[in-house]
Amino acid sequence: MQIDLNADLGESFGSWTLGDDDAMLEVVTSANVACGFHAGDPSVLRHSCDRAAERGVAIGAQVGYRDLPGFGRRFIDMVPAELTDDVLYQIGALEAFAKVAGTRVRYVKPHGALYNAIVHHEAQAAAVVEAVVSYDRTLPVLGLPGSAWLRLAEEAGLTTVGEAFADRAYTPEGTLVSRREAGAVLHDPGEIAERCVRIATKGEVVATDGSIVAAPAGSLCVHGDSPGAVEIARHVRAGLEQAGVSLTPFVGEVR
Amino acid sequence: MQIDLNADLGESFGSWTLGDDDAMLEVVTSANVACGFHAGDPSVLRHSCDRAAERGVAIGAQVGYRDLPGFGRRFIDMVPAELTDDVLYQIGALEAFAKVAGTRVRYVKPHGALYNAIVHHEAQAAAVVEAVVSYDRTLPVLGLPGSAWLRLAEEAGLTTVGEAFADRAYTPEGTLVSRREAGAVLHDPGEIAERCVRIATKGEVVATDGSIVAAPAGSLCVHGDSPGAVEIARHVRAGLEQAGVSLTPFVGEVR
Amino acid sequence: MQIDLNADLGESFGSWTLGDDDAMLEVVTSANVACGFHAGDPSVLRHSCDRAAERGVAIGAQVGYRDLPGFGRRFIDMVPAELTDDVLYQIGALEAFAKVAGTRVRYVKPHGALYNAIVHHEAQAAAVVEAVVSYDRTLPVLGLPGSAWLRLAEEAGLTTVGEAFADRAYTPEGTLVSRREAGAVLHDPGEIAERCVRIATKGEVVATDGSIVAAPAGSLCVHGDSPGAVEIARHVRAGLEQAGVSLTPFVGEVR
Amino acid sequence: MQIDLNADLGESFGSWTLGDDDAMLEVVTSANVACGFHAGDPSVLRHSCDRAAERGVAIGAQVGYRDLPGFGRRFIDMVPAELTDDVLYQIGALEAFAKVAGTRVRYVKPHGALYNAIVHHEAQAAAVVEAVVSYDRTLPVLGLPGSAWLRLAEEAGLTTVGEAFADRAYTPEGTLVSRREAGAVLHDPGEIAERCVRIATKGEVVATDGSIVAAPAGSLCVHGDSPGAVEIARHVRAGLEQAGVSLTPFVGEVR
Repeated sequence: MQIDLNADLGESFGSWTLGDDDAMLEVVTSANVACGFHAGDPSVLRHSCDRAAERGVAIGAQVGYRDLPGFGRRFIDMVPAELTDDVLYQIGALEAFAKVAGTRVRYVKPHGALYNAIVHHEAQAAAVVEAVVSYDRTLPVLGLPGSAWLRLAEEAGLTTVGEAFADRAYTPEGTLVSRREAGAVLHDPGEIAERCVRIATKGEVVATDGSIVAAPAGSLCVHGDSPGAVEIARHVRAGLEQAGVSLTPFVGEVR
Repeated sequence: MQIDLNADLGESFGSWTLGDDDAMLEVVTSANVACGFHAGDPSVLRHSCDRAAERGVAIGAQVGYRDLPGFGRRFIDMVPAELTDDVLYQIGALEAFAKVAGTRVRYVKPHGALYNAIVHHEAQAAAVVEAVVSYDRTLPVLGLPGSAWLRLAEEAGLTTVGEAFADRAYTPEGTLVSRREAGAVLHDPGEIAERCVRIATKGEVVATDGSIVAAPAGSLCVHGDSPGAVEIARHVRAGLEQAGVSLTPFVGEVR
Repeated sequence: MQIDLNADLGESFGSWTLGDDDAMLEVVTSANVACGFHAGDPSVLRHSCDRAAERGVAIGAQVGYRDLPGFGRRFIDMVPAELTDDVLYQIGALEAFAKVAGTRVRYVKPHGALYNAIVHHEAQAAAVVEAVVSYDRTLPVLGLPGSAWLRLAEEAGLTTVGEAFADRAYTPEGTLVSRREAGAVLHDPGEIAERCVRIATKGEVVATDGSIVAAPAGSLCVHGDSPGAVEIARHVRAGLEQAGVSLTPFVGEVR
Repeated sequence: MQIDLNADLGESFGSWTLGDDDAMLEVVTSANVACGFHAGDPSVLRHSCDRAAERGVAIGAQVGYRDLPGFGRRFIDMVPAELTDDVLYQIGALEAFAKVAGTRVRYVKPHGALYNAIVHHEAQAAAVVEAVVSYDRTLPVLGLPGSAWLRLAEEAGLTTVGEAFADRAYTPEGTLVSRREAGAVLHDPGEIAERCVRIATKGEVVATDGSIVAAPAGSLCVHGDSPGAVEIARHVRAGLEQAGVSLTPFVGEVR
């Protein structure tokens, strides 16, 4: 039994720090590194790639809308062809630092409002798929199971990986409880770790009504910048290891 | 006899157009494509790379300071390590579009205030050299003969190419007449073409005092966005071809 | 009989020029000056305000989404309170240049995707209204007749002014023909001028089916940056003057 | 006896937080609020202005170079006229939020690399002075005693206020010890408070060699975002109050 742990990293910018990347990189197996459009400046990207490469953590391109003031959390109604180009630009920029660190970009995971938009927005989902296909068809993509993003990526011949969320409540239908509802986000490290073990070992999760729903996942997402992020991630990792689950990047060993 | 013709391209941004890239790409053999920090957005980069690749024009990374409002024409007193990272980011971003166009970035030429700064600014020159060395030591660099930039690049083992300027007056010492002085920039297409032939065939240029000075050049720079830019570039190309000089990218054939 | 002519100005940025502001300022009576978020840099704003003030042209704040690469033409799903603050920031910035030019910001007109969004988007419309109300309740607002923007502004006690479009086709229902349809934009200066006279003198316009529909307008919008913009604007002004319509800012004389 | 305490505030941006503005606003009497060019977004500016106004803290425009990635800490060799316009833009933007908060911008203090540049750079110093003069000649300016900035401002008829630094070591010549030297920045809250009392009550400070040098100051600058900033500021305030020094904005009471 094995699972991948991914987190958003490289989200500092200039004099502003967000999250504790070095600590998180001791825990996760895949790093979704911001590419400068919603967060991350070139020196931050370099630092994240260098540290990830040293630790054998897979580097993924965390691509987002071009919106530093909004941190990529606001939907932008872009022309799809321009979105394709924005995504290509970001992947390329990150690739330079992966290359300098002796590795390469191993997957693509959209960020924030783009992540949410392409669950349903077919044209934007297709635009991001087009970027990956034209850049490198062997590059896997990471996202929400059941999303237009993963469906279109699969139809285009890309390798797709669905993720489950360590700290999110699930509905009896197996979807995420909306963040607008109470109890949508879990905070107890022990409980979160326990749920992760269940997802990793049985591919299932306990829903809000106590029922058990399927949650097959190729990767577990832990948050990188919330309060307590590092502590929760460590609990998740320890819990998985105690349960005999080995932590490995979903793209395979990277060193 | 052969020579390269280079020009700055890809300098439009969003709704703002600068220069006539498609027309210039019919004339030049090397395109210094802006990378988004001083000019150029992802869709502009893509268009420039696609057209350049179709015509067998070599794509160079025209890297600059991160300064859209100043178009990269204002010196920024950056920490050298951050400049290295900014240059890497730009090369990588452009590489994605070169790759999608079926080719790759073939050389690096700094832009504007960065170009001027690293004629003398050793620390910033070294920072740009460091970016190229760490990215790909086989990538040639283009710049001003006698600059710290080319000297340090050569010391670091990079291939260096010096350029001459089609439309600039030269002092009897073989340096460029400052733009602040009258007559620094030539405007007559016929005269400019004639000077280019002399540079390409004899490696020399007539200085402001009528004396003849050495001007060995691996590439001739024509301007891409000044009024009359396309007409001047066409005259230069026609003049060189009539004189039996073949126009070839300095990096060699790219298709 | 009198009418106001407004156009979008101040939309150049750094080395990129858009439109011929000086020429347009000889024609229009109200200048919607971009405030730096979708277009316009501080020196452009200053130039536009100085020239407008010299000619007695009323200065309006042309506020938009913070999106230079998209020129404010992409809807951004912002938190309304943040939109209020973005609008306040822009009005204040422009006010500094109006003040230095010896005048002040006389009205507010949203730009591009924001203009279109707040025709129907109640929350964003309310957010822009809130900005104007909190800044200065005596400041009139300009927009599309029938829009949520003007309705909410009126409910909030602001002076509202509806505009008609010089070069746009109207449906038999009195709404604008979508730009996606053929014939949506008129190009013949003579025809455009004639329609403007009818709007100014009779408050009506000939729709696409030949019927006559009401088009009461406190201002006529002419485009500032399209090809032929200056020529069309001059025809409109000449046509109105010949028809005995006096051209006056809708906010009243400003010098 | 009275003195002003100023600190840089409003330097968060989007999702990135810097400093604890609310805590600092309980301590200082003047807030140098960032205006969006080096730090601060519109919602941050609004929050800072609202809180400052509530507490009777004077709002100053902390103007800087347009350089978010560099936090305004990198010298930019700008055309002076463009610097004037950049400063005007920033003052105006902040003024909108001061106005909405029921007050107004009460002074101007340059930030970071601009602050340092205009100690000696006459053309840039004159450009910032020109901005203040053209905006409002009654607006005082705050800066380093002996700087070109204060000298030119005074020559232009502006009210100038020199500041002393709570946590910086002074040379026997009465200038600041360079940050590159050991001991340049003091960290002990008690010692810092004691020095502040001496500056406020006697206009003098103990230099690095033990000698006593004159340090007349109309304001004391405490840092807003360094580790321990709030604690140091509280010690300084408490020390001054215990010594019978009243804390008052240098521009006078603002409510």
